[in-house]
Amino acid sequence: MEFLTNHRSVRKYIDKKIEQSLLEELLQAASCASTTGNMQLYSVIATESDDKKRQLAPCHFNQPMVTNAPLVLTFCADFNRFCKWCEQRNATPGYNNFHSFLTATIDALLFAQNFCIAAESKGLGICYLGTTTYNAEKIVEALNLPKFVVPITTITVGYPEIIPSKSDRLPIEAILHHETYTDYTTADIDKHYAYKESLPENKKFVADNNKTSLAQIFTDIRYTKQDNETITTTLIKTLKKQGFQFEF
Amino acid sequence: MEFLTNHRSVRKYIDKKIEQSLLEELLQAASCASTTGNMQLYSVIATESDDKKRQLAPCHFNQPMVTNAPLVLTFCADFNRFCKWCEQRNATPGYNNFHSFLTATIDALLFAQNFCIAAESKGLGICYLGTTTYNAEKIVEALNLPKFVVPITTITVGYPEIIPSKSDRLPIEAILHHETYTDYTTADIDKHYAYKESLPENKKFVADNNKTSLAQIFTDIRYTKQDNETITTTLIKTLKKQGFQFEF
Repeated sequence: MEFLTNHRSVRKYIDKKIEQSLLEELLQAASCASTTGNMQLYSVIATESDDKKRQLAPCHFNQPMVTNAPLVLTFCADFNRFCKWCEQRNATPGYNNFHSFLTATIDALLFAQNFCIAAESKGLGICYLGTTTYNAEKIVEALNLPKFVVPITTITVGYPEIIPSKSDRLPIEAILHHETYTDYTTADIDKHYAYKESLPENKKFVADNNKTSLAQIFTDIRYTKQDNETITTTLIKTLKKQGFQFEF
Repeated sequence: MEFLTNHRSVRKYIDKKIEQSLLEELLQAASCASTTGNMQLYSVIATESDDKKRQLAPCHFNQPMVTNAPLVLTFCADFNRFCKWCEQRNATPGYNNFHSFLTATIDALLFAQNFCIAAESKGLGICYLGTTTYNAEKIVEALNLPKFVVPITTITVGYPEIIPSKSDRLPIEAILHHETYTDYTTADIDKHYAYKESLPENKKFVADNNKTSLAQIFTDIRYTKQDNETITTTLIKTLKKQGFQFEF
């Protein structure tokens, strides 16, 4: 299982293109992932041209991987293709609802993760861009996504220039529950986060930002309430624009 | 990449338990998946007792795998642990919004898919249960999930008794777009779905149900508009109950 445990997010790539045949082989393997009712409710947009990368870059807050990677893949929840098929076959689709959106999102993510495993097994490095849902509206425009297609995640792909060290992870006991969910006590939380909080790079991060805890780095800087609420507003607007009903 | 292309959903298992040490090893490998800001916004509930399996079974429409598999894993989007950590560290979490729910959902799914690959690499068989979001409310009760924890997907796990044949998939050209999304013409749709529609088992399915197309099997029987809308209503109610705001 070293192909899983060796994962790290690779953000620097050498100047070498990914052959079209390799891309298709990787996507083929990825598409063997489980999918709801075998509907394959996803599409992927491959960005390789400099022009289009420059257009996507601000959607991802100009993270340098977007323009430097030979390949950028935007994975989308896609009910468009399936609905078109239904309509051509005298079948009336009823997929413009939140549950259907979530179903397609699940399909797209299992496919994306399978792709990453396939790519890494061939010596490629990948990095997920969580910014996709932040700026979904702009990505819809840049990639010309029709109704019932929503970008869910993006990965940059290339041959690694620098292989960074692995990220820390919580101990398994922190994420595994037996039979029912056992809620965390104060002592549990202290124990589970102790290693993460002890890391020199995290301590430096806290000190450099004049914070008193690592958690404040997340709540006050990286993932703030205000940002999350602004993103939610834009995201819902985009989901509605793409045809999914959001009146509850 | 045969470990990906050999995937099939395994629904029948021999009577052999999964060792706790193996389960933890698989989860360890799975947790190396990419995760938003290294927050690991997920938990997994392992169901092994007959009592709890019987309680979960109706949540999954009594699909026999739930009671017959030695192990049932419910993967949850989990902001509870992270919020508790924030609160213990004098940091104010702002994660009770739709975007944060989606972020945790993404994390949970990459983790789940990594787990499946790890499990299959050790000779185990898995089957995803898409029914998890259908009956999220009942699963929340059965597994005692606290606020900010939502079940997203479930897999049954065991050593295969029967390894079924592989499912068909759309050709890669049906899911891959270059630079921008090229919408499907009528001819494209006909071409992409031709193989699926030609399969004898699908033709039989259409005939047995007195339908005129395979698409009608999906729209009229398997994934109907009415079901999707009913599920959406319950799902939103559950998300609100679990603490995520859904007023847009």
